[in-house]
Amino acid sequence: MIRAALCASLALLFAAPAHADTLIDNVNGITLDKDGKLVRFTGLVIDKDGKVAKLLDRKDKRPERPDFKEDAKGKTLIPGLIDAHGHVMGLGFSLMTLDLSETKSLDEALAAIRRYAADNPELPWIIGRGWNQEAWGLGRFPNAADLDAAVPDRPVWLERVDGHAGWANSAAMRAARVTAASKAPEGGRIEMANGQPSGVFVDAATNLIAAAVPKPLARDRDRAFLLAQQKLLEQGITTIADMGTTIDDWQSYRRAGDKHQLAIRIISYGHDVDNMALIGGPGPTPWLYDDKLRMVGVKLYLDGALGSRGAWLKAPYADAPGQKGLPLLTPAQLRNKMVRASMDGFQVAIHAIGDAANAEALDAITDLNADLPGERRWRIEHAQIVDPIDIPRFKQLGVVASMQPIHQPSDRLMAEARLGPERLKGAYAWRSMETAGVRLAFGSDVPVESANPFPGIAAAISRTDAQGQPFGGWHPEETVSRETALDGFTRSAAFAGFAEDRIGTLMPGMRADFLILDADPLLASPSEIRGMAPRETWIGGYRYYKRKGS
Amino acid sequence: MIRAALCASLALLFAAPAHADTLIDNVNGITLDKDGKLVRFTGLVIDKDGKVAKLLDRKDKRPERPDFKEDAKGKTLIPGLIDAHGHVMGLGFSLMTLDLSETKSLDEALAAIRRYAADNPELPWIIGRGWNQEAWGLGRFPNAADLDAAVPDRPVWLERVDGHAGWANSAAMRAARVTAASKAPEGGRIEMANGQPSGVFVDAATNLIAAAVPKPLARDRDRAFLLAQQKLLEQGITTIADMGTTIDDWQSYRRAGDKHQLAIRIISYGHDVDNMALIGGPGPTPWLYDDKLRMVGVKLYLDGALGSRGAWLKAPYADAPGQKGLPLLTPAQLRNKMVRASMDGFQVAIHAIGDAANAEALDAITDLNADLPGERRWRIEHAQIVDPIDIPRFKQLGVVASMQPIHQPSDRLMAEARLGPERLKGAYAWRSMETAGVRLAFGSDVPVESANPFPGIAAAISRTDAQGQPFGGWHPEETVSRETALDGFTRSAAFAGFAEDRIGTLMPGMRADFLILDADPLLASPSEIRGMAPRETWIGGYRYYKRKGS
Repeated sequence: MIRAALCASLALLFAAPAHADTLIDNVNGITLDKDGKLVRFTGLVIDKDGKVAKLLDRKDKRPERPDFKEDAKGKTLIPGLIDAHGHVMGLGFSLMTLDLSETKSLDEALAAIRRYAADNPELPWIIGRGWNQEAWGLGRFPNAADLDAAVPDRPVWLERVDGHAGWANSAAMRAARVTAASKAPEGGRIEMANGQPSGVFVDAATNLIAAAVPKPLARDRDRAFLLAQQKLLEQGITTIADMGTTIDDWQSYRRAGDKHQLAIRIISYGHDVDNMALIGGPGPTPWLYDDKLRMVGVKLYLDGALGSRGAWLKAPYADAPGQKGLPLLTPAQLRNKMVRASMDGFQVAIHAIGDAANAEALDAITDLNADLPGERRWRIEHAQIVDPIDIPRFKQLGVVASMQPIHQPSDRLMAEARLGPERLKGAYAWRSMETAGVRLAFGSDVPVESANPFPGIAAAISRTDAQGQPFGGWHPEETVSRETALDGFTRSAAFAGFAEDRIGTLMPGMRADFLILDADPLLASPSEIRGMAPRETWIGGYRYYKRKGS
Repeated sequence: MIRAALCASLALLFAAPAHADTLIDNVNGITLDKDGKLVRFTGLVIDKDGKVAKLLDRKDKRPERPDFKEDAKGKTLIPGLIDAHGHVMGLGFSLMTLDLSETKSLDEALAAIRRYAADNPELPWIIGRGWNQEAWGLGRFPNAADLDAAVPDRPVWLERVDGHAGWANSAAMRAARVTAASKAPEGGRIEMANGQPSGVFVDAATNLIAAAVPKPLARDRDRAFLLAQQKLLEQGITTIADMGTTIDDWQSYRRAGDKHQLAIRIISYGHDVDNMALIGGPGPTPWLYDDKLRMVGVKLYLDGALGSRGAWLKAPYADAPGQKGLPLLTPAQLRNKMVRASMDGFQVAIHAIGDAANAEALDAITDLNADLPGERRWRIEHAQIVDPIDIPRFKQLGVVASMQPIHQPSDRLMAEARLGPERLKGAYAWRSMETAGVRLAFGSDVPVESANPFPGIAAAISRTDAQGQPFGGWHPEETVSRETALDGFTRSAAFAGFAEDRIGTLMPGMRADFLILDADPLLASPSEIRGMAPRETWIGGYRYYKRKGS
């Protein structure tokens, strides 16, 4: 089904030749060293293994006869950016399905859906994602009747932008045998209207429809992966932490590796302990394919998202007084999974968005830390709404805060509505985390947001959106420095994945993963940074991407 | 559970050094060429990639300064033997569980079970395999009461030698909640006694108990694999076709490969189409780890085994007049699975033991052959009892007969009882297959039999058992020549797995997989052959095994 929907052609990825002893000269070179100190250089020498051999100063002698030399003509060179939290296959499939994330109103979305259905008559289901009733200013969830007006004859199933809710038409509900009598599973909710399912399904209830969608074939998966990889290369992501790898996902990554088609690096976290154990077996895998792939840990989901009110809060939602959201795991379930992973040396990354979820994750880590010696590098993913009294506990417990700066401008108005003003003090609180001594790893949560890291860097340093709004930044006391933003997308993102011994900086001995940029992100304005895109993306001393015309 | 049962220590596999330009000199060298013609040589030169560079005659000049030279002092050198049909993880787990295959009576077996339970008090379940009421001369199946007398307090579950039946004690049936009311699933049978389950479960019904056995952990699986590999190396098997790989099995093989612990070569057939698609994805995998691992196809089960009367016969069993055995797939199911595999380029291997199953497999291949161009190399596994009128169809349809010579002496008396004299004409009918022009690939069906290929070669050329019985051979008109036996375990076994371009002979360019033997199997007596064991086992130019004292 998805196969037929694929129109984009795969770019030929691997045209860039391998080089022994490469010199990239005449650069405005920037990296952090292993302690986070800024280092500047004007030339980069890469050895035959694709590792950094030497950083050169203006006055340093250049190698006399490198096998390959590139004159960067003063362009800026920075370490390859690491996305500490993304969903690789989610990105790939989003590139193969209808994208509603740019629609500005329900009507615009319905028009796009109608057009897509007409353009793809062979598809048995219309699958899409990215809708956001908040961005549409709709003031309510959309419903099946809205969709039926656009596509009455075929099932339509559209994931919300945050992945925590789905929107079905009547044909999809019929195909999935969902009726007024259907019960939401635990951890899920069926939106109702006049005693009937309205068409919107929240969190665990999305499975009621999703289970009826025809499964993609392995060839669809492999194509989705290559599309995702190409997109990441174009956006300057050289490594991504894949947050919730299934065995099917893993097999696609391995097939790419086996066929020498793996360009980016993937730090994989198994989708719950079953996938972790099936993929890793008795412990984390070694680094595979020249440090391109490793399963290092497990991703656990403790709550949902703010937009769908699935995030688990200490006090009720400001805009839905009876509701506090839902924990997706009992205390015992959470701890059992954490112990099972940790005993076998797997790292644990816990999705926690609401302040109650964050507190519970910290409580669980407290319970386990005493009995589990060794450096665990517990990760809390998102750490979006944190009670300020809990922030110091991240530091005390050695927890990495894995946060996505771009969520802040995207969520701003919604967060204000959901939380009210008081709770915003611990919302997207990067600077508070940093001040408390917490390690900050930055990512995108792609495909919830674009994987493009530059708007994320711009958000991190300015707390403004694509229009530069609000002027002066939203709660600007929580901005971070440019160096911290760079650190979050490079050195600390590597640390968060136990990879700081090979990537994240350009110090000698590290893998030569880097970008060539038109401007210096330490000098450019936030709006200039937002518009940046790499001229070239190099991984392990190979140039995998070169922008057209550059 | 199985972990605790493991007593054997893992030999250090990888002590043998790599050599560039190796000379094995002064050998009585034997190989077939690509057309099956016998070639003799006295020296073997291996290049730095572990491939055969040259075969030397007595008069040929030797390389002047090889990096490594071994003087074999006139010992015999033959190609590494290929087991065309085995179960690698089954062998591994059999090495970690109670082995009853050498017991000569029910009493002896019960004594062994009692002793094993006493020696392993920490095991929650006693797991074993290898029993055979025929070998015991019991005249009936054993039952739960027999077992309860040996182990009353803990569940006991023992697989029959052919893997097609299991024997439980009362505690195991209680743990699995099996009662008089339990129904056998389709394709299975619960043996009953006085209106109660007797304790023996046949074919699909074995799952009723097996599902309650605690699952082995990944670390148990990995250890089982390394034990199996070591055993195969000691027995002179350099490549094995793994007939029914699950995703768990595959992950163990990959972990071994990733850690540079994969010594033997594995040609993998997925356990039904689900595992095939999950492992291979859109098609067969490439050869991985320097030709050590490849998933090439799928294993389908069309019937059971003769011992448990699960083999599907055209006419009723001679010793159970009402029964004809069971097809495990409907005609539509079989063809659907074959099409699904073949359309994606996977090879299909169909388990067929009874003459009805063989005829149905041939019918299905006939139905598909016309619509599927290209060389499919359909395989029928076992092809044990074939109606003589069906034998020419193997040749017509291009079907490889994948047979296990050692089954013949093991099954002889039982086959006579099950089939009566008339049907023995197409039983284990190697020479008839060969005469009809059918490609014969030989294997062991380990762990149903020992993986040791030498008793298999002896059986193939003599149709006698370990005691040399019956004198002159059982239906000796079906013996094959020594050259054909060698071909079945080398060149044709490689062909059967689409691997003849890299293994199976020692012609220049092929992987240097070979054995050093004490005697020449083309000259030795059947009883000498039966007792052979390699002095050394080399794979890809590495010596992975050297017998103590040799």
